[in-house]
Amino acid sequence: MNRHLISAADLSRDDALLVLDTAEELARIAGRSIKKLPTLRGRTVVNLFFEDSTRTRISFEAAAKRLSADVINFSAKGSSVSKGESLKDTALTLEAMGADGVVVRHGASGAPHRLARWVRGSVVNAGDGTHEHPTQALLDAFTMRKRLGGLEGRKVTIVGDVLHSRVARSNVLLLDTLGADVTVVAPPTLLPVAIDTWPCSVSYDLDGVIPKSDVIMMLRVQQERMNAAYFPTVREYSRRYGLDAERMAELPEHAIVMHPGPMNRGVEIAAEVADSVRSTIVEQVANGVSARMAVLYLLLGGSEPAIGQEVAQ
Amino acid sequence: MNRHLISAADLSRDDALLVLDTAEELARIAGRSIKKLPTLRGRTVVNLFFEDSTRTRISFEAAAKRLSADVINFSAKGSSVSKGESLKDTALTLEAMGADGVVVRHGASGAPHRLARWVRGSVVNAGDGTHEHPTQALLDAFTMRKRLGGLEGRKVTIVGDVLHSRVARSNVLLLDTLGADVTVVAPPTLLPVAIDTWPCSVSYDLDGVIPKSDVIMMLRVQQERMNAAYFPTVREYSRRYGLDAERMAELPEHAIVMHPGPMNRGVEIAAEVADSVRSTIVEQVANGVSARMAVLYLLLGGSEPAIGQEVAQ
Amino acid sequence: MNRHLISAADLSRDDALLVLDTAEELARIAGRSIKKLPTLRGRTVVNLFFEDSTRTRISFEAAAKRLSADVINFSAKGSSVSKGESLKDTALTLEAMGADGVVVRHGASGAPHRLARWVRGSVVNAGDGTHEHPTQALLDAFTMRKRLGGLEGRKVTIVGDVLHSRVARSNVLLLDTLGADVTVVAPPTLLPVAIDTWPCSVSYDLDGVIPKSDVIMMLRVQQERMNAAYFPTVREYSRRYGLDAERMAELPEHAIVMHPGPMNRGVEIAAEVADSVRSTIVEQVANGVSARMAVLYLLLGGSEPAIGQEVAQ
Repeated sequence: MNRHLISAADLSRDDALLVLDTAEELARIAGRSIKKLPTLRGRTVVNLFFEDSTRTRISFEAAAKRLSADVINFSAKGSSVSKGESLKDTALTLEAMGADGVVVRHGASGAPHRLARWVRGSVVNAGDGTHEHPTQALLDAFTMRKRLGGLEGRKVTIVGDVLHSRVARSNVLLLDTLGADVTVVAPPTLLPVAIDTWPCSVSYDLDGVIPKSDVIMMLRVQQERMNAAYFPTVREYSRRYGLDAERMAELPEHAIVMHPGPMNRGVEIAAEVADSVRSTIVEQVANGVSARMAVLYLLLGGSEPAIGQEVAQ
Repeated sequence: MNRHLISAADLSRDDALLVLDTAEELARIAGRSIKKLPTLRGRTVVNLFFEDSTRTRISFEAAAKRLSADVINFSAKGSSVSKGESLKDTALTLEAMGADGVVVRHGASGAPHRLARWVRGSVVNAGDGTHEHPTQALLDAFTMRKRLGGLEGRKVTIVGDVLHSRVARSNVLLLDTLGADVTVVAPPTLLPVAIDTWPCSVSYDLDGVIPKSDVIMMLRVQQERMNAAYFPTVREYSRRYGLDAERMAELPEHAIVMHPGPMNRGVEIAAEVADSVRSTIVEQVANGVSARMAVLYLLLGGSEPAIGQEVAQ
Repeated sequence: MNRHLISAADLSRDDALLVLDTAEELARIAGRSIKKLPTLRGRTVVNLFFEDSTRTRISFEAAAKRLSADVINFSAKGSSVSKGESLKDTALTLEAMGADGVVVRHGASGAPHRLARWVRGSVVNAGDGTHEHPTQALLDAFTMRKRLGGLEGRKVTIVGDVLHSRVARSNVLLLDTLGADVTVVAPPTLLPVAIDTWPCSVSYDLDGVIPKSDVIMMLRVQQERMNAAYFPTVREYSRRYGLDAERMAELPEHAIVMHPGPMNRGVEIAAEVADSVRSTIVEQVANGVSARMAVLYLLLGGSEPAIGQEVAQ
């Protein structure tokens, strides 16, 4: 495996399966209520967040702590970054402080890639601009595999603001690697210009693809972007691209409903859909900790003892 | 004991005594300079603070860390909560991440109660609106018992803005459970409408009750509420409801002076009173860590080894 | 050694050498990739930051965690401090909570000194107003000694806004203790009135002192202070007091270039100088963790086992 995880495209099929298998093993151990592994004892993971994202930060923090790493949270607000310090100087600072892993969330696409040039530790992209969010794709794939038994040949439909969604991009790349067939459904104005270079199909007809989907993944949509996409009202957007109970009823019986959170209940997803048994939204959060543990374990674990040497409670 | 601690009224007399005895034992161990117990190793405590309260957060954080728990701080500011995420979705997120305990501070009365419906972990109310702050009542009771030898039949006077004080409400409930006689003293406009349903007496005559008090607990008063209560000046409020050296001299010799902090020196309490030997204000802070350790120990400890298996330094 | 570290002047020559030797030993251990020592297990270090300073806070946090201490971050913003709590009450709170060490950054010169009167734990000044920043001076001395082999008789030139620089003051005091010859170079308006009482020389002629310097330390300058010092433009300041490649070429071959960070590339230091092989800027950050580990180790370690009892990974 690569030393960093910047893009879902960094992962070969074997890499991706190794992460998923490791996450499964880690979840199995946690299920035996052994919550803490000694693997990363003495390692330092820095959460370097230039954008607020409490959910993602906490997920990585919980993952790192369960592996016994020390965690240092670095919120760029009010830091020397706001005094004009360059990303490079921040990187050199973290490097010099001995960070073994840097989990980075940044508003600018490409920032984690640049960061990786300056640090010896592993860089994990926790979301950069509208570019990528690879651990989200891993936890989503983990969730699908658990629920459906495998990804090969599965039909995954991703619906909403694909243009601004790092979640969509990372999912399309990883799911393609893992052999799934992905269709994105979005208003034309919320599709990237280069969508024809993505390894997926495109549809504008949500009701047409629903009955053929094993997975439907709803993306969060933001008010101002709905407007920019010529939807005069939330209601109009919901009618065209939202998932309500009626639409959910057209899914095959085994199909699941996913959402990366936080949801706008009543906008892209109806409350009754979010809370239904098909919904994996809460599982996704739990799987996020396992998937991130697996990533940190594989990138930082180095010569550490294999899984199995659990800390007795 | 209940799985959660939402209200001081959740505690039976036996529960409350168990917490106090456990806190005493934990303080005794810490006094032998054994600062860290392994009891909650591998457990995760989330401090979920929707309102700023550095003192309370730090007290819980110190308590959890001394029991070897992992602590994750979740400040709701700038989080997805501010993007409109519901309390329920926040709860489900924490639940899915495997929080064993959630310490919650919220501006809305009743929020911890609602939270408790959605999580399997233990919820500890760290202050909700003007409702309750049960661990403050526990640390106060612990402090009184230590100084006075017992609560049964003790006369406790609580003075100030009872209407907006979660500290007052939790204290009245817990002290009644423990057999103390409580009198609240407040301007009529700063008393709750339903004060006659509280298990305490009411007085408007501070100077009358002082000589009969074993404990006098001064509440923090806020400028804007003094005004709302028709006190044109701070000085006027202090003259009527503040504790100065002259008033303190009327207390029985053994009586103690308490304050939950942070104090307004010179408003509800004179500086010389706050710093006198009768004052337990600093002890209360120290006892807060012990009382919160006891609560976390009893709620989360489960099948863990009993106190006594200390970590050698 | 003193129980606190408030000023570089608190350190005798023997104390300072002990810190530097300890830092060297700790860096040596870390170099063997043993990152965590058990020395401060069960001790609590509070980072009490009244001013934002992510870099310094993280450096102390990393240092404390590598010594296995529990770390609690207390940012005074939005805390009860902003509700008007006095520094004394904050101190008594931390004291009561059992803080073994308090690392304090405060906007007011002298605040750490006052704090030290109220707490039993050790107070470490992490920067107070325009007064002092002693651990910065220690890490700088550590860096010089490593690069130059010793401080005795070395010529150190400190350039820039000496008036507002706690870094400059602490460096001058410590370097004098360690036998170095210090010259400060600054616009007359950016020198303290009492500069003639400092144990250093003063020059206004940067180009004259450069060829005789073993070390040149550039201070961060702030826009508004440049203006106050009658520099109409950044360019004018840089021309007179900035270090560019041309000036660097006039340094002796063995001389090093230092900066406490964060840098204003292109203002007080040119980018090519900052990134040159003479620059120790990144090393300073790494040495900062070692120097702070040494300080915490010596102040808080008490009767703890000597260095050498490393935690096996």
